[in-house]
Parts: sequence; C-alpha cells; structure tokens
Amino acid sequence: MQFTSFEQSALYAVMVAAVIGVFYALYLRKNVLAQDEGTEQMRSIAGQIQEGAQAYLGRQFRTILFFLVILAVLLFLSGLPDWKIAIARGLAFMLGALGSGLTGYVGMTLTVRANVRCTQAARTSLGQAMDIAFKAGGVTGMFTVTLGLLGATIVFLIFKEHATEVLLGFAFGGSLLALFMRVGGGIYTKAADVGADLVGKIEAGIPEDDPRNAAVIADNVGDNVGDCAGMAADLYESYEATLVASMILALAYFATDPRKAAVWIIYPLLVRGIGVITSIIGIGIVKLRGEESPIKPINRGVMWSAIISIIAFFLVTKYYAGLTPDTRWVQLFWATTSGVVLAVIIYTLTQYYTLAGHPPVDSIARSSQTGVATNLLTGFAEGLESSVAALITICAAIAFSVIIFGAEANPVDILYGVSLCGMGMLTTTGVIVAMDTYGPVADNAQGITEMAGVVEASANVAILDAVGNTTKAATKGIAIASAVIAAVSLFGSYLSKVAAGLSGTAGTEAVSIEALQRLSLPLDKPMIFVGLLIGGAMPFLFSSMTIRAVGRTAFQIINEVRRQFREIPGLMEGTAQPESAKVVDICTASALRELIAPGLLAVLIPIIVGCWLGWEGLGGYLAGIIVVGQLLAVLLCNSGGAWDNAKKLIEDGAYGGKGSDAHKAAVVGDTVGDPFKDTAGPSLNIVIKVMNIVGLLVAPLVVMYAGGPVLPIIGVILAVIVGIGVIMSKRESQDVREVHTAVQHQEEAS
Amino acid sequence: MQFTSFEQSALYAVMVAAVIGVFYALYLRKNVLAQDEGTEQMRSIAGQIQEGAQAYLGRQFRTILFFLVILAVLLFLSGLPDWKIAIARGLAFMLGALGSGLTGYVGMTLTVRANVRCTQAARTSLGQAMDIAFKAGGVTGMFTVTLGLLGATIVFLIFKEHATEVLLGFAFGGSLLALFMRVGGGIYTKAADVGADLVGKIEAGIPEDDPRNAAVIADNVGDNVGDCAGMAADLYESYEATLVASMILALAYFATDPRKAAVWIIYPLLVRGIGVITSIIGIGIVKLRGEESPIKPINRGVMWSAIISIIAFFLVTKYYAGLTPDTRWVQLFWATTSGVVLAVIIYTLTQYYTLAGHPPVDSIARSSQTGVATNLLTGFAEGLESSVAALITICAAIAFSVIIFGAEANPVDILYGVSLCGMGMLTTTGVIVAMDTYGPVADNAQGITEMAGVVEASANVAILDAVGNTTKAATKGIAIASAVIAAVSLFGSYLSKVAAGLSGTAGTEAVSIEALQRLSLPLDKPMIFVGLLIGGAMPFLFSSMTIRAVGRTAFQIINEVRRQFREIPGLMEGTAQPESAKVVDICTASALRELIAPGLLAVLIPIIVGCWLGWEGLGGYLAGIIVVGQLLAVLLCNSGGAWDNAKKLIEDGAYGGKGSDAHKAAVVGDTVGDPFKDTAGPSLNIVIKVMNIVGLLVAPLVVMYAGGPVLPIIGVILAVIVGIGVIMSKRESQDVREVHTAVQHQEEAS
Repeated sequence: MQFTSFEQSALYAVMVAAVIGVFYALYLRKNVLAQDEGTEQMRSIAGQIQEGAQAYLGRQFRTILFFLVILAVLLFLSGLPDWKIAIARGLAFMLGALGSGLTGYVGMTLTVRANVRCTQAARTSLGQAMDIAFKAGGVTGMFTVTLGLLGATIVFLIFKEHATEVLLGFAFGGSLLALFMRVGGGIYTKAADVGADLVGKIEAGIPEDDPRNAAVIADNVGDNVGDCAGMAADLYESYEATLVASMILALAYFATDPRKAAVWIIYPLLVRGIGVITSIIGIGIVKLRGEESPIKPINRGVMWSAIISIIAFFLVTKYYAGLTPDTRWVQLFWATTSGVVLAVIIYTLTQYYTLAGHPPVDSIARSSQTGVATNLLTGFAEGLESSVAALITICAAIAFSVIIFGAEANPVDILYGVSLCGMGMLTTTGVIVAMDTYGPVADNAQGITEMAGVVEASANVAILDAVGNTTKAATKGIAIASAVIAAVSLFGSYLSKVAAGLSGTAGTEAVSIEALQRLSLPLDKPMIFVGLLIGGAMPFLFSSMTIRAVGRTAFQIINEVRRQFREIPGLMEGTAQPESAKVVDICTASALRELIAPGLLAVLIPIIVGCWLGWEGLGGYLAGIIVVGQLLAVLLCNSGGAWDNAKKLIEDGAYGGKGSDAHKAAVVGDTVGDPFKDTAGPSLNIVIKVMNIVGLLVAPLVVMYAGGPVLPIIGVILAVIVGIGVIMSKRESQDVREVHTAVQHQEEAS
Repeated sequence: MQFTSFEQSALYAVMVAAVIGVFYALYLRKNVLAQDEGTEQMRSIAGQIQEGAQAYLGRQFRTILFFLVILAVLLFLSGLPDWKIAIARGLAFMLGALGSGLTGYVGMTLTVRANVRCTQAARTSLGQAMDIAFKAGGVTGMFTVTLGLLGATIVFLIFKEHATEVLLGFAFGGSLLALFMRVGGGIYTKAADVGADLVGKIEAGIPEDDPRNAAVIADNVGDNVGDCAGMAADLYESYEATLVASMILALAYFATDPRKAAVWIIYPLLVRGIGVITSIIGIGIVKLRGEESPIKPINRGVMWSAIISIIAFFLVTKYYAGLTPDTRWVQLFWATTSGVVLAVIIYTLTQYYTLAGHPPVDSIARSSQTGVATNLLTGFAEGLESSVAALITICAAIAFSVIIFGAEANPVDILYGVSLCGMGMLTTTGVIVAMDTYGPVADNAQGITEMAGVVEASANVAILDAVGNTTKAATKGIAIASAVIAAVSLFGSYLSKVAAGLSGTAGTEAVSIEALQRLSLPLDKPMIFVGLLIGGAMPFLFSSMTIRAVGRTAFQIINEVRRQFREIPGLMEGTAQPESAKVVDICTASALRELIAPGLLAVLIPIIVGCWLGWEGLGGYLAGIIVVGQLLAVLLCNSGGAWDNAKKLIEDGAYGGKGSDAHKAAVVGDTVGDPFKDTAGPSLNIVIKVMNIVGLLVAPLVVMYAGGPVLPIIGVILAVIVGIGVIMSKRESQDVREVHTAVQHQEEAS
C-alpha cells in the first residue's frame, strides 16, 4: 500500500496529536496532585482508600498477567503460518492490554488521590472542588483516547495493509482488560456496595460510610473501580474494535481500488486524531461560572467538543477524502457526523429515562407509595421501554448509513458507514470518560467528608456528588450504544474475513468486494437460525451469572465484616480500627474467581459455535448476541439508574420524603437496580464486543478447517473446559451455601 | 390434488375422531353438572362468580364481535382478487374465532359451575373432588383439540390444495381470540388479583377471599379467565398455526412431486386425529388411587397419552406415509415423536425451575432471609438461566430435524420436520389444557370454602389447590415452547409464500422447491439486520405495555372498592353486600381498553415493517421476535412461578415460616412475579404467533407491490393509526395519574 506524502504527514500529525494528548493528561495530573490534601484525618482515610485501590489493582494485574501470557501464545498461534503476523499479533495484543491497563492504573491511582483534595477544596470553594474532580477524570479520559491511538497508528505505519491482522491482537488486548476491569470490576464494586450496606446500615444499624464498618473502604475503592477503570476499559475497547473493524472493511477495496482503500483505511485514524484535540478542548473549557450547577459546564464541554468535532470532520473529510476522485467525501462526512448526533440522542434518551424531572423516574417514585412491588414493576416496565427507544435510535443510525450510501450500495460501504458512525460517536470519548470518572471522585469526596466529619465541605460535596450520579447514569447509555455499533462493525468485518477465507486468500489483500457480495448468511438456513437463537441466549446466561456473582461475593464480605465486629475488641466502640485491606482483598479475590466462568464463556463459546455450526452458524450467533445484548443491557442499566434516582427524588422530599414507606420501597428498588446497572448491564457491553472479536479472530480458521474432523474435536475439548469452569463456579456456590447454613445455625444458637 | 380412497377414508376417520371428542366433552360436562352443588351459601357465592364470569364473557365477546367484523372484511380483501378464496378466508376466519370462542365459553361457564361442586365433594371425598375438577378441565381440553381439527378438516376436504389459503383465515381467527382471551384476559386476571390484594389484605386489613371485599369475586373470575379460557385460546392458536404452517410447507412439493405433497399435507391432520384419541384416553385414566397425591394420576394421564401417541404415530406413519415410495416414513415418525420428547423435557425443565424441592426455588426462598432485594435478584437470575435452558432445548429440537433430514436437505424438509415436532408436542394438548384448567377450579373451590366457611372441606381443597399451582406453572413452559415452534414453522411458511410471490405464482400450486431454495434472507443485508433488531424490540415493548396495563387496571379496581367501602353502609360490618358485578365490569372494560394499544401493535407493526423494509426486512423482523420473545417469555413466566413457589415454601415452614421477615420478602417477590407470569409472559406467546401469522398473510402483498408507492403510503397510514392508539393509551394513563393525585389529596385532607 502506497501512501501519498500528504497521508504520511497526516499520520504523523495524528501521532503528534496523541502525544500532545498524553502530555496534556500528565499536565492535568500534576495540577491535581499539587492541590492541598487537607487534615491528618482526611489523609488517613484517603490513605486507606489508596491502599485499597493499590491492593485491588495489584491482585487484578497479577491475575491478568497470567491470562495475558496464555492468550498471547494463543494469538500468536492464530496468526500462523505467517510468522511475522503471528509474532506481531501476539506483541500487539500485549501492547493493547498494556495501553488499557495503564489507562486504568494511572486513572485510578489519581482519582483515589483527587478525592481527598476535592474534599479539601470543597471546604472553601465549589468551583475549585469541581475543577479537581473533573480534571482528575480528564486524565483518564485523555489516556483512553490517546494510548490506543498511538499504538494503532504505529502498528499501521509499520504493517500498512497487513496492519488489521496485527491490530486485531491490539483490540483483543483491550478486550482482555475490559473483561477484568469492567466485568470483574463490576462484580467487585457492587459486591462491596451491597455488602457494606447490608452488614452496616441494615444489620449493625450504623450509618453509611461509618468508619467502623470494614467494608466501607472497599465500597469507596469500588466506586473508582467501576466508573473510572471500568468505563475507561470499556470505551477503550469500543474505540479499538471500531477502528479495526472499519479498517478491515476498507481493505475490501484493496484489490480493485487501492487508492480508495488507502483513503478509507487512513480516514478513521484521522477521525480519532480529531477526537484527541476536541477532547482536550472539551475538558479544558469545563469551568464553573458563578452560581451555576456543576452539570452546566460539563454539558458545555460536551457540546463544544461535539461542535468542534463536526467542523473538523468537515474540513478533514473535504480536503483529505475529497482528494481522490472515487470517494464521495460527503458520504464519509455524514456518516461520521451521524455518530455525534447519535451520541447526543442517546445521551438525551438516557437522561429522559433515568433522571428525575421526566415522567419515567417520577412515575417510579409515585408508584413507590403503593409499595415495593409497584416500584419494581414500574421501573422494569420503564426499563423495557427505554431499551426499545435506544434500539430504534441505533436502527435509525444504521438506516441512515443505508440512505447515505444508497440502498443498492454494496454492504461494505454501508457497514463502513456504520463503523464511521461509531468513530464519530466515540470522538467525544475523552470528555465522556472525564465526566464519568468525575463521579467516583465526587462520591469518594462525599465519603471522606462524612468519615472525617468535615462539616463545612458537606454542602459542596453533596452538590458535586448529585451531579456525579447524573453523569454516571447518562454516560452508560453511550457506552452501550458504542458497544453495539462496534459489534455491528465487527460483525461486518467478520463477513469480510469469511469472504477472504472462502475465496482462498485468507491473508489480507485480496478480499474482493465481489467475494463479499456473493457471501450470504441466510436466516432461513436452519443452522444459522439455531446460531441466532444460541447467540441470543448468551446475554441472558451472562447476566444470570454476573448477578449471582454479586450476591455470592457480597456474602463473603458480610461474613468477614461480621467476623471483625465479633473478634476485634473495641471496634464497635470506635477505639479500634477495622481491617479494611482484608475486605478489599477478599472482595477482589472473590470477584476474580467469579469471573472465571463468564470469562471462559465469553472467549470460548464463540469458538465452540464456530467449530460445531461452521462460519454460517457463528455469523447467526454473533448477530443474536448483538440484538439481545443491546436490549438487555439498556434494560438493566436504565431501570437500575431510574430506581436509583427515584429513591433520590423521594429523599429530596417527594411523596413523603426520607423515612416514609415510599422511601423504604424505593430503597429496595435501588438495591435491586445496583447489580443491574453497575455489574450485569455494563458487563454485556464487553460480552457483545469480546464475542464478536473472538468470532473475527477465529473466522479464517473456521473457514479453513471446515468439513474436517479438527473443528468438532476442538469444539468438544473447549466445551469440556467451559463445562469444568461452570461446574467449578457452581461448586463455589455450594461452599457459600454451606457457610450460609453454618452462619444461620450459629445465629440460631446464640 | 387427488386423494387415494385410503386418504379419503383417513380424513373421514379424523372427522369422526373429532366428533367423538366433542361428544366425550359433552359427556364429561353432563357428569360434572350432575354433581351436588352444596349449601345455599355456597351456591350464592358460586352464583356471584358465575355472574361475574358471564359479565366478563359478555363484554369480551361483544367487543370481539366488533373487531371480528372489521378483520373479516380485511381478510376478505387480503384474499382478492380470487373471490372464492377471499370469501372462504373471511368465513374461515369467523369459524376459527368461533371455535376458539366456543371453547373458552363452554370451558369457563363449566369451570365456574364445577368449583362449587368440587367444594361440596371435598367435604367427603378427595378423590371425587379431584375427579370433578379434572373432568371439568377435560371439557376445555377436548374442545381445544376437537373444534379446530373439525373445522380444519372440513376446510381441507372442500378446498384441497387451496386449503392453506383459507386455513390462514382460520388460524388468524384463533389469533384474534387468543389476543383477547390471553392478553386482555391476562391483564384482567392479574389486575383483579393485585387489586383485591392491595385494597383488601394490605389496605383494609381483611383476609384474602373475604366476602366484604368487592374485588374478591373479580379475582375468582380472573383465575378462570387466565388458566381456562386464556390457556385454551393460546394452545388452540398454536395448534392451528402449526397445522397451517406444515401444510404450506408441504405444498412446496406440489409442482414437482404431487404425491409426496398430498401425503405431507394430510399427515399433520392424522397426527391431530391421534391427538384426540390419546387425549380422551389420557383424561379418562386420571383417577385418584388410595392415598396418593393428586399430581400422581395427572402425571399418569400425561405419560400414558404420550406413550400411546408415539405408538400410534409409529403405526400411522409406517402404514400410511410408508405407502408412497418417495417419502421416508421414518423421518416423519422421528420428527413427530421428537415433539413429544420436547414436551416432556420442557415440562421437566419448567418443574425444575419453578417448583420447590429443586435448587432454584430453594435458593430464592433462602435468599429471602436477607431481604426483598436478594429475593428478587435471585429469582431474576434463575429466570434468566431458565430461559437459556429452554432455548437450548428448542435449538436441539430444530437441530434434530436437521439431523433427521440431513444437513444438505432443502430447508422445506427441515422446516416441515420442525412443524411436525410442533404437532407432536401438541398431541397431548387435551390433557395439558385439562390439567391447567383444573387449576382455577381447585383455586375457586378453595375460595368458596373460605368464603362459605366450609371447614370440613378445607384440608382437601388445600391439597387440590397446591397441585393446581404446580400444574399451572408447568404447563406454561409447554405453551411457550409450542408458540415458539409454531412461530418457527410460520416463519418457514412465510419464506415459502415469499418464494411463491417472487416467482409470480402467488396462488398455491406452483411454489417450487427450487424457488424456495433460491430464496435467501441474508443477515448481512443491513435492512434485514435492522428488521431483526426491530423485531427483537417488540417483545420488550409489548411486555412494558402489558405490565403497566396491569398496574393501571388494578388501580381502577382499588378505587372502586374504596368507593364501595366508603359509600355502602354496613359493608365493613358484614350486614350489606358489595357490588361485585360492578368491579368485574370495570375490570373487564379497563382490560379491554388496555388491549387496544398492544393489540394494534401486534397486528399492524408487521404490516408497517413489510411496507417500509420490504419482505426481506419483514423476514428479519419475524426472526427477531421469535428469538427475543422466547427468551423474555420464559424469563417472565419462570421467575414469576419460582417467586410464587418460594413464597409457598416459606409458608410451609421453611426459613422462618409464615410471618417471618423472609416471608414478607417472598410476598413482595410473588407480587412482582404475578404480572410477569400471568400477563406479560403468556402474552408474548400470542405476540410471537400473531405477528408471524400477520407476516404470512401480508407476504404476497408485500412482494406484489414492492417498489411502488402504495406500500410506503399504507405504511404511513398504519403508523398514524398505531400512533393514535398509543397516544390514546398514554392519555388514559394521564387520567389515572389525575385520579391518583385526587385520591391522594383526599387522603391527606382526611
């Protein structure tokens, strides 16, 4: 593949932009760390959270390292017989994982330092406290958009048209981290939350965030795990997956129209470059003015970064993509811009369904007056409806791509359009991650204020925390939508890969448009239909596992806290310290153990389906996951968010206020919603993407060995491995049951 | 189409079997009605339930009549330009509706008479009481399997190869009734249940089934609505839909191999004939022996009718289908038998997930100890898992058909095999409906015992009622699975219709296998993928609507009962009678109003999709509904059933027993589960089938007018109608909100 000198320079410019982004992040970090850490007591509490975060990250990364090595070997093997590709893919995998891991590590170690500084600043100034929280989030945001781009651009410059083969490894590295940080982290964060609440507020009758409760630190660490490291890893994966998918699709033109292929491959990298710049601007302009609510400047930041992005798309598309006669730049511009619009619509929809002041949350709060059951049914019904609304929006985005390229265009164009929509949607990722990560900083600040009794900061941190809940809920919708668009793009590139495999040119260059057009995944073929059904079942299975995992892990925490109350003299009286680090460790270990079964499923089931049902059945399977995954993820996230805010609405005085029966009902709704919105829902984002990436990775192999005895045998072996994993996780739950029974007997005896 | 004289006689034999079945039902009915009705007070209470049932049925049928006329005209138009077909289809539609309506009417008017006779018999003999309840159910069961078969066979004898065109109308008649009886009835039954509980047990503090509560009669009527008329209409629709689908598929051989086509068309009718005979035997042998639990003889009845069916399949398939050289009878035999096996597996699976004594219900009950939230989360997780298990079983059934006919067979054979699996599954329908309808008789008997204070019957009716809950939960799984298999078969015939339309022969005869093999619904076409996504969203939208409908209708009941407590002097003291009929009427009217929006959606959305996305998009859409509909329906039904039985397990003394905190938590779970399992879940069965039948009906039109301006315009008009319907239903909810607020103000004032 030949680049023009303009393209060469443009790619270097992208790299420069990425490097600038990294430096901007480091600058923000330095600024945050330069702030005052407050009193001795505040530091001591923050220190415990920092230690907890370190313990969490340490154990998490040690486990990841183990899987990293195994999977790197597997990815190396998947790249054979081309040695160069095999080695590069394995290395890129580790690089991709490193990028995502570093983002999470730097982000989380900063947020757990920013929290106490935010509290300290809140004693005197809301504006400055807000600034610290948001800028701390900005560091994670900038790392998310820059590290992946830097890696991808370098890989591309080295490998050119073979780059997608290598970048698949890179994207899968992001997936591995996302599995750990988002799914494992999701189990961790909610188990800590539910465990702390059950044993503290309900059992021991002590307030939330009471320092005597050993699970409180774990809970505070958990906030950072879910909304900083988890969200960053999720969007990092979406970004890489969409990029690779768009490049694979563009490659389909390589044989017939190499110039068009070059422009189409490079264009997504330029779009990401724009994203870095607009993220810097978007984060930079967030500043509280006067008496306004902190949500205002955040919304300004999002809005301006969106507007500037669109202007930049226009210029870059017209003057770069317009350079070749064969490419209609207007199509590329509209496709990318539609992504920005999609993000805005999804953001608005999510707010409508999850924030007070709109009918859904109001009706949930109102129905709490007639009890828990009506609260839950209303929330569930609203959640179901919100899934439909989000899905229709995504359908509209796909249909828009059809309209841009014309109904008679070949599928590659339309799918490339969809992936550009995804790239456009993720352009504001820097700001989105920043506003999501802002959440746990504010939440932690609230916790520290409570624990250290910093009365004068209370009002300000309460304002910040409320806004944090808003941003956390609203950004979830974008994470899901981006996952779905990424998965649709991956599904498109899966077809491209299969077409290449079928035409006997499993390398890269010769995937002709023709071969792709000949390809068909007919729903009327029974095995494809069966694949579709099985794929549809996966999100249900996965959610069932993660919801249960939260319960089991929370139970282990409860047991440990009970033990500490029993065995540490003076703890209840406040004269002794709880062993918080131990709870963090138990929670991390348990969450990781709980990750084994769903993790195995996510990685191995697509391979098993490919082995048994062939590439056609696997195609149906991947489509099934997308359909059901989207619906279920939005249902879980939005109903959870709506229950949360319905409770807060009542706490703010509506329908009887705090302590009323309506409030009690709403609290239950919130507790049910917690694992929905923070564990099971976000986990589905990862499942949708991971399974599609795995499908893409094994596509050439499934095509190559079709009909032979190898695949069925491999399928059996993998099925046995999955079976053992699932049985192990069932045995685990047997243990929990025994402990449960033992505790019960003990209680009955006493 | 020429029949051999053997075939002619076989078809007459089927008709004779159906007529015998009707007479058997009338004989059972006479037997039940001949029993003693008990004391004056018992008769008076039963009389109120009978009046309520009459009021419900009267209003229901008046409304149905209105829609019947409109839809008959539309069906007539859909059959044009062939006048003969058009008129016959319109008439068959009314006949199909009449058959289902008559089944519901005869069934329900009997169950509300059997209840008091069951109570009376229970004073002296458990065996006789059980006999009355089950035989009353048997009447509904026999009507379900015979009336449809009689009509279908007559239509077939008259129209021969054109019969499927006419039978489509017949099946759609069943769909209309199913919409009213199962969806409208589902809203009615749960609104009455929840309303009676909320206003009685919780608000007024009076016991369940207290005669002072005006909603108690509505609640007792509701049991018969849901589990007698609703289930019968559901399975009636499945049976007709599967039959038509299998016949349409068989017709594909008409041009190339008319003999094979004839055998394949007639064979499903013979299978149904077998079903009548084995249902008679199955119902007949249910008799309590000695001290055994009533579940034992019921299970014996199911088992023997299954075994006899398989033997009869063997004989009929070998000696009839074996007569033609081209048909491999073994394939047909195994396909049909696999349906019986599927029914048994689904029955067992549903019992595993919803009955006490198995891990799922036990773990829900255990988790109730830690509160409502854990009870709900555990139930939800178990429900999700059960959906996956049921789906895998259905996949196995489809895969089995692939194995029987060979992976390289043409799709018609495999889909015909799937529809035979459905026919086999429904063979025991007579017994299944009988055991489901047995439920409300026992439940009512329990209510009458309570209200009339017939102490000596208490123990016996309690035993009968407990078994009724078991049978009701277990048969739901079969209803869903049969709906899914019916829908897959309809999806297959949709493809066949489209192939006929595309090859310019939209009549019947010339749908060649070739045309069908050329047909393809490629998932990789964006518009098919969009159709799939939208189809997947429908079950979510529908469930959201029906769950809310229950809440709104329940609220109207609560208001009316409150009014009666306030305005009828002496009601609370027991000296005056409540106006129960009024509550029944309000509940029926509200349920019917709530049916408008989802009913419009079910019928019109597939047409709109066909108009806008063409036959390909519509195909994707129909597949999407099946995937998500199955998963969501099983989730809703099984989690609901499991919560119910977890509560009963605790009431039987586990984990603290009645009145404990665990019990309170389990009661909430049960209340949440009620609209899940009795309204939203079963409604999805209907949605899955109705939408696929509508798709099948409009397929020729969508193909014929493709590309022109007619379809988009019709699409717009229909979309406006749906929009108005949905807005009307939203305004309705606005009214409720105002009433709600008014009531609240009033309460605050007093």
